[in-house]
Amino acid sequence: MLTYSFEDKGYDSLYESLYKQIRQDILNYKLSPDEKLPSKRALAKHLNVSTITVENAYLQLMAEGYIYSVAKSGYYVSHVSSTKATETPRPAHLVDEVTPTPSFFVDFVNNSTSADNFPFATWTKLMRETMSDEADKLMVRSPSTGITPLRNAIADYLFQFRGMTVEPEQIVVGAGTDYLYSLIIQLLGRNKVYAVEDPGYQKISKMYRSNEVSCVPVPLDKNGVDIKYLDKTEADVLHISPSHHFPTGLVTPVSRRYELLSWASQTPDRYIIEDDYDSEFRLLGKPIPSLQSIDVLDKIIYMNTFSKTLTPTIRISYMVLPKGLMERYKKELNFYSCTVSNFEQYTLAKFIEQGYFEKHINRMRNYYRSQRDTIVSCIKKHPDYDKVTIREENAGLHFLLTVNTKYSDSQLVKRAADNGIHISCLSEYFSVQEKSLEHTLVINYSGIKKEHIEKAVELLFHSF
Amino acid sequence: MLTYSFEDKGYDSLYESLYKQIRQDILNYKLSPDEKLPSKRALAKHLNVSTITVENAYLQLMAEGYIYSVAKSGYYVSHVSSTKATETPRPAHLVDEVTPTPSFFVDFVNNSTSADNFPFATWTKLMRETMSDEADKLMVRSPSTGITPLRNAIADYLFQFRGMTVEPEQIVVGAGTDYLYSLIIQLLGRNKVYAVEDPGYQKISKMYRSNEVSCVPVPLDKNGVDIKYLDKTEADVLHISPSHHFPTGLVTPVSRRYELLSWASQTPDRYIIEDDYDSEFRLLGKPIPSLQSIDVLDKIIYMNTFSKTLTPTIRISYMVLPKGLMERYKKELNFYSCTVSNFEQYTLAKFIEQGYFEKHINRMRNYYRSQRDTIVSCIKKHPDYDKVTIREENAGLHFLLTVNTKYSDSQLVKRAADNGIHISCLSEYFSVQEKSLEHTLVINYSGIKKEHIEKAVELLFHSF
Repeated sequence: MLTYSFEDKGYDSLYESLYKQIRQDILNYKLSPDEKLPSKRALAKHLNVSTITVENAYLQLMAEGYIYSVAKSGYYVSHVSSTKATETPRPAHLVDEVTPTPSFFVDFVNNSTSADNFPFATWTKLMRETMSDEADKLMVRSPSTGITPLRNAIADYLFQFRGMTVEPEQIVVGAGTDYLYSLIIQLLGRNKVYAVEDPGYQKISKMYRSNEVSCVPVPLDKNGVDIKYLDKTEADVLHISPSHHFPTGLVTPVSRRYELLSWASQTPDRYIIEDDYDSEFRLLGKPIPSLQSIDVLDKIIYMNTFSKTLTPTIRISYMVLPKGLMERYKKELNFYSCTVSNFEQYTLAKFIEQGYFEKHINRMRNYYRSQRDTIVSCIKKHPDYDKVTIREENAGLHFLLTVNTKYSDSQLVKRAADNGIHISCLSEYFSVQEKSLEHTLVINYSGIKKEHIEKAVELLFHSF
Repeated sequence: MLTYSFEDKGYDSLYESLYKQIRQDILNYKLSPDEKLPSKRALAKHLNVSTITVENAYLQLMAEGYIYSVAKSGYYVSHVSSTKATETPRPAHLVDEVTPTPSFFVDFVNNSTSADNFPFATWTKLMRETMSDEADKLMVRSPSTGITPLRNAIADYLFQFRGMTVEPEQIVVGAGTDYLYSLIIQLLGRNKVYAVEDPGYQKISKMYRSNEVSCVPVPLDKNGVDIKYLDKTEADVLHISPSHHFPTGLVTPVSRRYELLSWASQTPDRYIIEDDYDSEFRLLGKPIPSLQSIDVLDKIIYMNTFSKTLTPTIRISYMVLPKGLMERYKKELNFYSCTVSNFEQYTLAKFIEQGYFEKHINRMRNYYRSQRDTIVSCIKKHPDYDKVTIREENAGLHFLLTVNTKYSDSQLVKRAADNGIHISCLSEYFSVQEKSLEHTLVINYSGIKKEHIEKAVELLFHSF
């Protein structure tokens, strides 16, 4: 008869310990395939445990397939082979990187929000209100496109501050624009050719490539996407940021906007994805009207995000689909669960509805404007100011700085890095290299601490 | 000279009102293309406003491309055509559906968490702690794969409660399993053939179809996926739930598990996606060991979610990649932003680390067990109990109920609906229809209110 000891069972219950010991014997072939096990009652008596203990161990072994039962006969060992019968050690914890490598004194490339600028007190208050007032609603699955109050709030916001007339039903909320892009590909079809701006935000073409759809870069002229070039491509879908192009800062004028809409109108399959990522932060004058607001042919998929306005670490973006595409979404993609948690959807809805979002944007716009003014004035006061030219400083959260220098772009980046400054050059964003693009830096200043600005400008000039 | 009135300007500033009036005149061709505009100074004097007001209006018109400037000459009207010059009304709000249509007295198909079962007090406390203690960290972008403390906490949890040895670096956190599936397709390649269980969770094959990758259904025998059938397909990747199959409740025994691993080992491109969606809620005995824990060839992509254990309305899932695939992820997909907000990642990490998750699961397991016991005992007490057979009631949050009835499956569903009961039949989940599948109901009881159970069982029997 099988004999097992329970002395080393540790925190295991009796049945767990018995189950593990029998399993070990099966894996080590001490018990052979098709060997009959003792009856529950006999084994229980032999081991001086209750029948229930043996029964539970047998049931677990059976559930996992180590043994099988034959009616009116008993339990038998299954045919099992094993390569991993020994216990493995507990895995080590990952250690959080305290400082990213290489670490810069000032980073003009990657933007982030400083904790001082995020409305923690209000957000915490609204989150608490949401949890106590809306407990039941929080447990009800969000529609695939997002909860109703948030879509209403976004439609109101777009109407009041962006002059756009959008039905809440046209809005799809998702965890970041990356995710929404993947829905667009599923919606418009993988067989379409997607055109992206060259130069442009590199993540967008990476995303298309990673999804294995054809993606063609289209060069820009001084008014935005080159329509003649675009016409010669096979492109069906054009992905652009007409209100503020990254990295050039270009604003597409209204005449070109109508040309783009006209391009889109030529076949039923053509669409334009309008990525309006930082229109809230135009620092001079009113925001530029969106393409979506002058589109009468339902050709524009409008996208925006709360990454720039709140923080990139809250993952909420949205898109506005033309009505026809929304119907297709409902038919084909509505089975997807919404990717944003209810807790944050309800909190953000309150944040917008109660006017906090508007106040926050105004505050941030002033903050960024003063940030920009300080940097620009530091640059202007510098003894070597005649060596540089500042361009596109009003359009959004970055500007261009063209430098008269003997160093190549890669030398400039290297020299700046040696001085503790992270910069990128305009030329890095182009797929083809031209002499005329050299010596222009993209200065993204939204994450720079005020007290670092003067020193940063000094070190920057030192790198030229 | 252009003459404008500011009487109707409402809340607009002077410059905004002037900008709008000039734009209107350009769109209506009152001002012709290439017509010269008055100088800023002259117009300001004429309208009795400051030069700055006119300048700002001109700059806005220029930024949007309605006018252009010629050096040392002045401002001119651009060539602009318009089809949408009138203001549109504010869109109407969507009204939240208070009760979904059709509304059922009891829903045995869709599960949800009742607000009484979600640990609101603890979650709110931890969320508040996170916001006050970790403000700075909350503003730092999460790695693409998720924040370090959450991946450490998940690795510990898998080790302690699932017997799995997983390095935190192997874990990818994402907003729901749907999203993680799309990453797997990008990682393994769109040219692969994906096999899914037939019957199975329909969303999975929908997702593959929506991503336009080949997807073959593979039938099950009594031990899980039919290996002989699988061998005859072109499948590279097998997507299964071996610990608890939906909807049959089948647990794949260890012998079949080794056969599956052996299938995967045959070519380098083969992988198995192990979807462990409700292993925490095995109601009898210990959880079934995962396939991942017996895999020594790095062939298993393990997936799990907090939807079942916490609530489907918090969107946090994760996958464990074999080390080789994780390297590929780092090279090819690391550019994607993590789809879960930092706020919820840090809160969940604390929830697991501080032992609340374990307590919560134990509480929920007891709750579901008592739920299940009540339903089963109501069924057993029913005078028509001899008409039905209960199967697979220990494996997870649903069981099967086979009914001796003259009605067809669609009639059964219809009759139950007329009685206010939402049910689904096993046959609905199969791609081919067989007589033997008829008359078996899938009873998903996790969302049923205790006080409704007796009445629900009564109404259910009334439908047979």
